[in-house]
Amino acid sequence: TTAEQETSSISDPLPSWNDGKTKDEIIAFVKKVTTEGTQDFVPVEDRIATFDNDGTLWAEQPIYFQLFFALDQIKVLAPEHPEWKTTEPFKSVLEDDMKGVLKSGKEGLLKIAMASHANIDAEDFKSAVKTWMATAKHPRFNQPYNAVVYQPMLELMTYLEANGFTNFIVSGGDIDFMRAWATETYGIPSHRIVGSTVEAEYDNTDGKASVIRLPGVVLADRGDGKPIGIYRHIGKKPIFAAGNSDGDLEMLHYTDANAHPSLKLYVHHTDETREWAYDRDSPIGELNKGLDEAMAKNWTIANMKNDWNTVFSFEK
Amino acid sequence: TTAEQETSSISDPLPSWNDGKTKDEIIAFVKKVTTEGTQDFVPVEDRIATFDNDGTLWAEQPIYFQLFFALDQIKVLAPEHPEWKTTEPFKSVLEDDMKGVLKSGKEGLLKIAMASHANIDAEDFKSAVKTWMATAKHPRFNQPYNAVVYQPMLELMTYLEANGFTNFIVSGGDIDFMRAWATETYGIPSHRIVGSTVEAEYDNTDGKASVIRLPGVVLADRGDGKPIGIYRHIGKKPIFAAGNSDGDLEMLHYTDANAHPSLKLYVHHTDETREWAYDRDSPIGELNKGLDEAMAKNWTIANMKNDWNTVFSFEK
Ligand SMILES: [Ca+2]
Ligand SMILES: [Ca+2]
Repeated sequence: TTAEQETSSISDPLPSWNDGKTKDEIIAFVKKVTTEGTQDFVPVEDRIATFDNDGTLWAEQPIYFQLFFALDQIKVLAPEHPEWKTTEPFKSVLEDDMKGVLKSGKEGLLKIAMASHANIDAEDFKSAVKTWMATAKHPRFNQPYNAVVYQPMLELMTYLEANGFTNFIVSGGDIDFMRAWATETYGIPSHRIVGSTVEAEYDNTDGKASVIRLPGVVLADRGDGKPIGIYRHIGKKPIFAAGNSDGDLEMLHYTDANAHPSLKLYVHHTDETREWAYDRDSPIGELNKGLDEAMAKNWTIANMKNDWNTVFSFEK
Repeated sequence: TTAEQETSSISDPLPSWNDGKTKDEIIAFVKKVTTEGTQDFVPVEDRIATFDNDGTLWAEQPIYFQLFFALDQIKVLAPEHPEWKTTEPFKSVLEDDMKGVLKSGKEGLLKIAMASHANIDAEDFKSAVKTWMATAKHPRFNQPYNAVVYQPMLELMTYLEANGFTNFIVSGGDIDFMRAWATETYGIPSHRIVGSTVEAEYDNTDGKASVIRLPGVVLADRGDGKPIGIYRHIGKKPIFAAGNSDGDLEMLHYTDANAHPSLKLYVHHTDETREWAYDRDSPIGELNKGLDEAMAKNWTIANMKNDWNTVFSFEK
């Protein structure tokens, strides 16, 4: 970094955001809620910010990255399951036949999820995710998956934290999958990572106390599940929430219901050159109802193409 | 405070703890895990401390304070339920007939719990608890319930925090009941308060997004439930855990399984003059198996009578 760049990043907390309406709204909101002596001032303990992950902090195309992990994990576990060579959907996974995998439908995907995610010590599962994260590469960018994160959103989290906010991840992804890497990537400690949560049992039969992940879901952290996850893990409504799909709409409603002023942010995927362009009819990250409502209610919309001068740090 | 007292509290981080084995063990542990360059050093992000509440941070006699709240809340709600005047267990509650309440058995207590805790907006429930906390008094000490907290344990939490620990409450009490007052009392933010958790549903039918408490339990935060609650909310094993009953034993086992050095602390109720004396056969806070195991494994035991020169700050 040159001296000039350093000066610019000191004076501009969001250097990867282009000047304009979106950036102005974010900065004006933060100034408003942190200026003492006004009725909009929000005490530090109520400055809760919640971030969806897939499509909001990191990319989610061509498929959710957690599904890439699941598919890779089937291969890791295959030597213990010789029967998978001849059983679908595992056969297709092992043969890198994605059409065959998709042909197995929801039932097949559930089998893949169970085989890769259930009936395992939570610590061992996180270790498996860490190993994967250290070795797997995104097919388009040839980067580790946790490098395929949005630089402007990292800056936004740093900016909020510098202004007394406490940031949380509230992800539809599995809570242990997230916790295996998100602290390092986003600087958010594991107790501030909320995600979809499976049933669990405590096991101390061998004198090595541990928690085992079971089939069955305690929290599906999308749609209605996001406010419920926030309620359970945080116990306060956010004043700032960011998402990218209709699955975040309830979280944004819940944020909007805060008695304090609040900012609702949608990341809109509009850049097919640097990232992807998708919204209303996308099988992943559908943003339809939410987009209409965001426009009608003047929520903040980050238009990736226009508002971000950098998408990924590895572009530079 | 005199200058002498101030000097003493600066040099002694635990002034309400008498000098001796227990205090030495705590201080030696904290020095050990915070001294860089040794194999016992624990990085700040892994310095997780978990505290049971009832009987560990505040008193739990003659009955759990949350039960006092439930009984008082029945009286608050009674005008909306004229039928309670003639229906047990409510009739006995309204007539201050504790024998009648107890005669209704577990089924009666469950009815009281449901009527006072379920099918209510979580925010409204917390407001009810706050109102109760601001007005109700403990029958023996004539103090607000959140003043009936152990001064030595408050000092311990402050001491740990000053040494880079992150403190959590892991209580068998209801998570919303705890969150209504524990931040103010212990200085622990709501997202670091774990407790027993009920089913919940998201409701936005009237455009006022909220979460409604339902009957049914998602987490019974005692016994096996404590490590599961720690796993779900924190995602790391503690290196320091404090409890007072057999219901904390699994939490202490889970802590003991940490790859880092750990300290397991039992608060032992031995002071019938300043507080209460109870352990092996107490219907509340039974400490039997845990006491044997703590002694056999040389865990740390705070003997309230001998180790604490002050129990409650209002004694002074
Ligand atoms: Ca998303
Ligand atoms: Ca207890």
